[in-house]
Parts: sequence; structure tokens; C-alpha cells
Amino acid sequence: MAAALELFGKRDAEGVSIDDVASAAGASRALVYHYFGGKQELYVAALKSAAAQLEARLRPESPEVLEGPRGFHEGGRPIEELADGLKCYFDFVEGHAAGFAALLKGGPDNRDGEIGEIVDAVRQHLLRLIMKQMRLEKPGPALRVTLRSWTASVETAGLDWLEHGDMGRPALERMLVDQMLALLEVAARHDPQAGELLEKLICGQAS
Amino acid sequence: MAAALELFGKRDAEGVSIDDVASAAGASRALVYHYFGGKQELYVAALKSAAAQLEARLRPESPEVLEGPRGFHEGGRPIEELADGLKCYFDFVEGHAAGFAALLKGGPDNRDGEIGEIVDAVRQHLLRLIMKQMRLEKPGPALRVTLRSWTASVETAGLDWLEHGDMGRPALERMLVDQMLALLEVAARHDPQAGELLEKLICGQAS
Repeated sequence: MAAALELFGKRDAEGVSIDDVASAAGASRALVYHYFGGKQELYVAALKSAAAQLEARLRPESPEVLEGPRGFHEGGRPIEELADGLKCYFDFVEGHAAGFAALLKGGPDNRDGEIGEIVDAVRQHLLRLIMKQMRLEKPGPALRVTLRSWTASVETAGLDWLEHGDMGRPALERMLVDQMLALLEVAARHDPQAGELLEKLICGQAS
Repeated sequence: MAAALELFGKRDAEGVSIDDVASAAGASRALVYHYFGGKQELYVAALKSAAAQLEARLRPESPEVLEGPRGFHEGGRPIEELADGLKCYFDFVEGHAAGFAALLKGGPDNRDGEIGEIVDAVRQHLLRLIMKQMRLEKPGPALRVTLRSWTASVETAGLDWLEHGDMGRPALERMLVDQMLALLEVAARHDPQAGELLEKLICGQAS
């Protein structure tokens, strides 16, 4: 699986053959077929594994993450936690470039919507994580739309960064954090909850 | 095709059969198969048609749009043009609810990435339209990321609105326009071009 993930991370799925995966994993072609059934299954399994890695990296309670130098840190000021989470996300984007693009673009041969489900699950997870980070249980409509929109913005920015790479990661990450603050300011005109959240984020008084 | 689009617009693709389409169109099942080859092909064709309708509605030069009461108006203040474009987008979302969701979520049986391509084409088109509206030829990185991110936000807000519907359309549209202004303000810290654009949008001096 690790070998497949690395190959899919470096090349488009069309350019990876079962033979490539087998030889990278030091296994026989037959064994790969035995475990995964075919390239489509292998591809979906690789994407699921990539999604799980992203989720694990963003999960604060995960010990492997807390120990790691690049892990997500809990307990800082909320705005710093947000910036840390974003850094983890872009570490993942950078480390799994083709896989990330495939995850978001849907892949070449998505027979039964499995990839759409993986992407949806990652999005839901990110949203829950942000809400947890912000100590937010039930966002009202304006705040919910804003948080979902921002998540979509981050995804889009990740894809754009992979495509163009003409903006440095630190500047891009800073811009995205600033965008979150600006979006919350707009949302606060429709929902006082967003204003309270903005206050907490800036002042660092997580309740 | 209109009959298929209407059916796919009302129900999930799984719930629409070739027979349904044939009887809605007053045609025989054999004729539908003759023209489209199968349900997957019919579904892709229906989505393509939905995407084309959306693009036509947003295209300022299209006569059918200029004549229509809900068309996109060119020549107003740039910020009003943006708000008009957004209104057209949401008219489409409202009128083709299931089709819009299917377009963005990928559909049930996407064999060769065709649906991904349709979605990408709509996104590219929206981006070009916004750039044209804003009289913008070559955006720098920060501005490009911001415009793409905003387009993703609008899509996400459209899906959220269909799912929850707990925020009125006028309020949601206003919030999205305000978000664009707020995002440009943030982008202006990285790219003076974004600041100029913001100025133009607010003051209505399109150059």
C-alpha cells in the first residue's frame, strides 16, 4: 500500500501499472491482484489511505501526530492552532501532490462514486475539526456556510499551488488564515455567533 | 433532452430510468437508446446541457439572456454586475437542484472522468467571466488564488443552500458579494493589483 501510494503520489493514475506497484513493493503481480483485485481497486485503496493519513495528521489526539515535529498542536491560541492545522494540510498537499490532485479531481475511472465519498468524508472531517478547534457546537447558517466555504477555498488554494506554485507556501498559508478572519467578519453581519468566534480567534480566549 | 434534464433535475440519477425519460419525452425506449446509447450517456448529456445552460445564462453577450428578465446585465457598476451574475448562478441552482448537486458531486457512474471535465469547464468559465467582468487580464498569484477560492466558495454555498435552505437567497447572495470584497482586501496585502480591483469594484470605475 505504501508503495502504491508513493507511485500514485508521483504520477497520474494512468501512468501507474500493477507491475510498477508490484515491483516497487517487491511483490508479485499475482499477489497485488490477489489483494486488490485490479488497478481501480488499488487506486481507490491508495486514495483511502492518503485520506486517512491526512485525517490522522490533522487529528490532535493522535499520538503519532503529537510526537511528530510537524504535528498539529492543541492548546495554543486558537488562531495559531488554525495556522498549524493549515500547515499540516499543506505538508500533506506537498507530500502527496498527485494523490491530492486525484482526490479532489475525482480520478480517471470512478465507477461507483467511491472517490466522491472519500473526498466528501475528508471535507466533513476537516469541517468537524475546525469546529472542534473553535469550540463550536452548532454553527448557525451564515457561520456554517462560511466555514464550509473556507474549507473549499483551502482545497482550491492547494490545487492552485500545485498547478502554479508561484506563491510561497508561508505567504499562501498566511493569506488563507487572514481570509478566514475576513470571512468571519462578513459572516458576523449576519450572525452574531461569527463575531464571537472572531473575537475568540483573535484574542485567544477559547472558551 | 429537455425531458431528461427535467427528470434528472428533480430526482437523483439512480431514480431515473430510460423508460421514465422516454415516456416524459413522448418517445420510445428504443429511440432514446438510439440517440444516447444508455443511461450513463444520457446522464452525461443531460449534465452537459445543464452546464451549457448555466454558461449561457451567465454570458453577457447572449441575446436570450439580455432579453430575459433575470439575465446578466452588463454596463452597470462592477459590483452590481457581480451581484447580478451571482443571482443568475443561484437562479440556476434553484431551477436545477438535483442536476447542480450531481454536477458538483460527480454523479453515480462516472466511467471516464467526463463529469469531472464538465465541472472543470464550468469552473474555468466562471473564472473567465469574473475576470472579464472585472476587466482583468492577467491576475497575479494572490489575486488568482483569491478569485478561484471565491468561485469554490460560491459553489459550496450553493450546495449548502440546497441541503439546508435555512438562509434566505438574498441574504446569502449579499454575504457572498461582501465576502468577495473582504477576500480582495486580504489579497491586497499580497498583491497591489487586488487593491486596485477592490477600488474599482467599490467605486464603479471600470477601466
